Amino acid sequence: MRPVAEHAAAVAALFAPTATEWVPLGEARGRVLAQDLVSPHPLPPFANSAMDGYAVRSADLAAVSPETPTELPVAADVPAGRTDGPALEAGTAHRIMTGAAMPVGADAVVQVEWTDGGTERVRVERAVEAGQNVRGAGGDVTAGEVVLEAGTLLGPAQVGLAAAVGSGTLPVRRRPRVLVLSTGSELVAPGEPLRHGQIHESNGPMLAAAVDDAGGRAELLRFVPDDVEQFVRTLDDALAARADDPVDLVMTSGGVSAGAYEVVKDAFTGRGVTFTKVAMQPGMPQGLGLHAGPAGEVAVVTLPGNPVSSLVSFEVFVRPALRAAFGHPQPERPRVRARLAEALDKPAGRRQFRRGRIDAVAGTVAPVGGAGSHLLAALARADCLIVVDEQVTHVDAGETAEVWLLDG
Amino acid sequence: MRPVAEHAAAVAALFAPTATEWVPLGEARGRVLAQDLVSPHPLPPFANSAMDGYAVRSADLAAVSPETPTELPVAADVPAGRTDGPALEAGTAHRIMTGAAMPVGADAVVQVEWTDGGTERVRVERAVEAGQNVRGAGGDVTAGEVVLEAGTLLGPAQVGLAAAVGSGTLPVRRRPRVLVLSTGSELVAPGEPLRHGQIHESNGPMLAAAVDDAGGRAELLRFVPDDVEQFVRTLDDALAARADDPVDLVMTSGGVSAGAYEVVKDAFTGRGVTFTKVAMQPGMPQGLGLHAGPAGEVAVVTLPGNPVSSLVSFEVFVRPALRAAFGHPQPERPRVRARLAEALDKPAGRRQFRRGRIDAVAGTVAPVGGAGSHLLAALARADCLIVVDEQVTHVDAGETAEVWLLDG
Repeated sequence: MRPVAEHAAAVAALFAPTATEWVPLGEARGRVLAQDLVSPHPLPPFANSAMDGYAVRSADLAAVSPETPTELPVAADVPAGRTDGPALEAGTAHRIMTGAAMPVGADAVVQVEWTDGGTERVRVERAVEAGQNVRGAGGDVTAGEVVLEAGTLLGPAQVGLAAAVGSGTLPVRRRPRVLVLSTGSELVAPGEPLRHGQIHESNGPMLAAAVDDAGGRAELLRFVPDDVEQFVRTLDDALAARADDPVDLVMTSGGVSAGAYEVVKDAFTGRGVTFTKVAMQPGMPQGLGLHAGPAGEVAVVTLPGNPVSSLVSFEVFVRPALRAAFGHPQPERPRVRARLAEALDKPAGRRQFRRGRIDAVAGTVAPVGGAGSHLLAALARADCLIVVDEQVTHVDAGETAEVWLLDG
Repeated sequence: MRPVAEHAAAVAALFAPTATEWVPLGEARGRVLAQDLVSPHPLPPFANSAMDGYAVRSADLAAVSPETPTELPVAADVPAGRTDGPALEAGTAHRIMTGAAMPVGADAVVQVEWTDGGTERVRVERAVEAGQNVRGAGGDVTAGEVVLEAGTLLGPAQVGLAAAVGSGTLPVRRRPRVLVLSTGSELVAPGEPLRHGQIHESNGPMLAAAVDDAGGRAELLRFVPDDVEQFVRTLDDALAARADDPVDLVMTSGGVSAGAYEVVKDAFTGRGVTFTKVAMQPGMPQGLGLHAGPAGEVAVVTLPGNPVSSLVSFEVFVRPALRAAFGHPQPERPRVRARLAEALDKPAGRRQFRRGRIDAVAGTVAPVGGAGSHLLAALARADCLIVVDEQVTHVDAGETAEVWLLDG
């Protein structure tokens, strides 16, 4: 059987780095910056007042104290945003607001609390040093400085900084587009009644949510028929219809095991997709390749059909590859080590991914539910995966194991 | 000055829990479930095969071994999704696929690998026990079981489970709608050229991104004029236009300090909003209240205008309140303790929130940039806030401090 790491590398190799697109600042949150962002101007762009008060020449106030106050004529009023910038004459003051540009000739600001707040003349009770209450131009960012590097994940603070340096749009990496295919004649859409032998389709919505959660763009193509020719035609029609904004990955679940009606396996075999057994539990039957679609070659990953197998396989193989493709700085789940709250047994020769719940304070992790790959309720209660290596067959309670945090 | 905790409680008290709305399953990711989700049927809904193989009566194979194989007529073919459910006669086998319903009369499945794979007659080489390779009805979920509790955050696995129990739509808590107002005559839209004394508006896009990031729905109302009457008219027009899907919070930044042109303060004073000094750094000038708008009372929070002050204030007061309002199970940022990589000094009497970068492996945190509340570039490099209590004036390198993880 193929080692997990080898299959993960093969899935990652299917993806080229996604292209750059420009988005308005208001849509940049959660995206990855595609190019270094250089500030065209300093930040602040001009020296400005850090206080509401009076712009002065500090030399004019050298002898001032509460016992020997002085009065200065208020020659101008400088609210923030005043664009004409009058100069300050010696022996006068300008009333100035926080953020307003320092007048030429002024070198300090007396905060309003140290004055009588006058509008014609102002009584000043304290001296100030040159530069006091002044934010120098470029004190935060200098002109030409790289303020955000390519590869930065854009959160609120980064959006704010990009705005401050004047970017109305930003170059970001394209989010990979993923077509999620559900196959299986037994599947019925959630919300519809079941007949005997039918089940509600859960993999499609689950995997589409997982793609979106990873930062991709999922589209669910439901109920692809269990017929090879129809399957290929439905897929190729969907790919052709999306040629202008092409699909980066076709992701299927089910239809790949040893049964007699394995439409995914039958449709893709001999068409660039290879099927293999990977040494893991759950998730042994895996496939990958490039499908020659009507809009060019498109990556294909086939996941097993059991719900737990398919989501675990997505976590192990697809999520990190997809995130690396659009340059996410943290393609992998956070990994920690935690002590097992109870003993685990597993077969040799396969890496096991057990669903667990972590107690971060105690540093312990407890398995949730059994190893069965159809146990969706336990999967939904889990907040982590417990990873037990191939050669291990038993882990005692209290021993540590690698844990992948699914909330991170 | 008002303690941070007291102001935080007052902001939280502005919000009522948001209402329930029903969304299609494909839009449920990231939402909080509003009611317990009860499964109307067991999961699996019927006993089904865990393997591709042959459904049999285990008693018919009691004497079978590789040395004494037997042959059974294959009386039916049961692919997954077959709805007519033929019964199994004694002494016969049904060819069955993974997930297909067990025929009445069959109690075990012989996996295909233990047979010759025949379609008319099948040669079986091993005995099976009753129940072998059968997944019992209700083995994952029983009918009437609560599969997801109210308050559950819906991720991929929860969406999958909801689909499996047949939910085409889900009741979730409404995302709070937030109107973000930027005021200030000095502000110019990112992308537009600057004149002397002007700066690019950064708080609006930054706070809108922060609201969306918290799980709310932000709308940015830009360049509200620095004129009290125009400000109130612009705001009330915006609230009236949204009466059908009303705004939960009006959030302003700037216009609240001691200056002569403080439009937010002037507009809201005497209209249900009170302004106060909070014992924190940055972020001292804060305001909150209820504005009697044209569509009813709406919560108002006024944040200070310096970019760092406004985002820190959002983190401390608004984000947890907003998330609690729509029932998020983790309203607050993850908090850890880490050793300071360098000493910190601060004034007494105010809780300080310094921007930092954490090294989770080393367990250390280093301050990024100075304490200045206009330093956006440092804010954008930070991944955490370092919280230093009111009475502390000095923390030595190596001492531990509380750290809020901004990526969590």
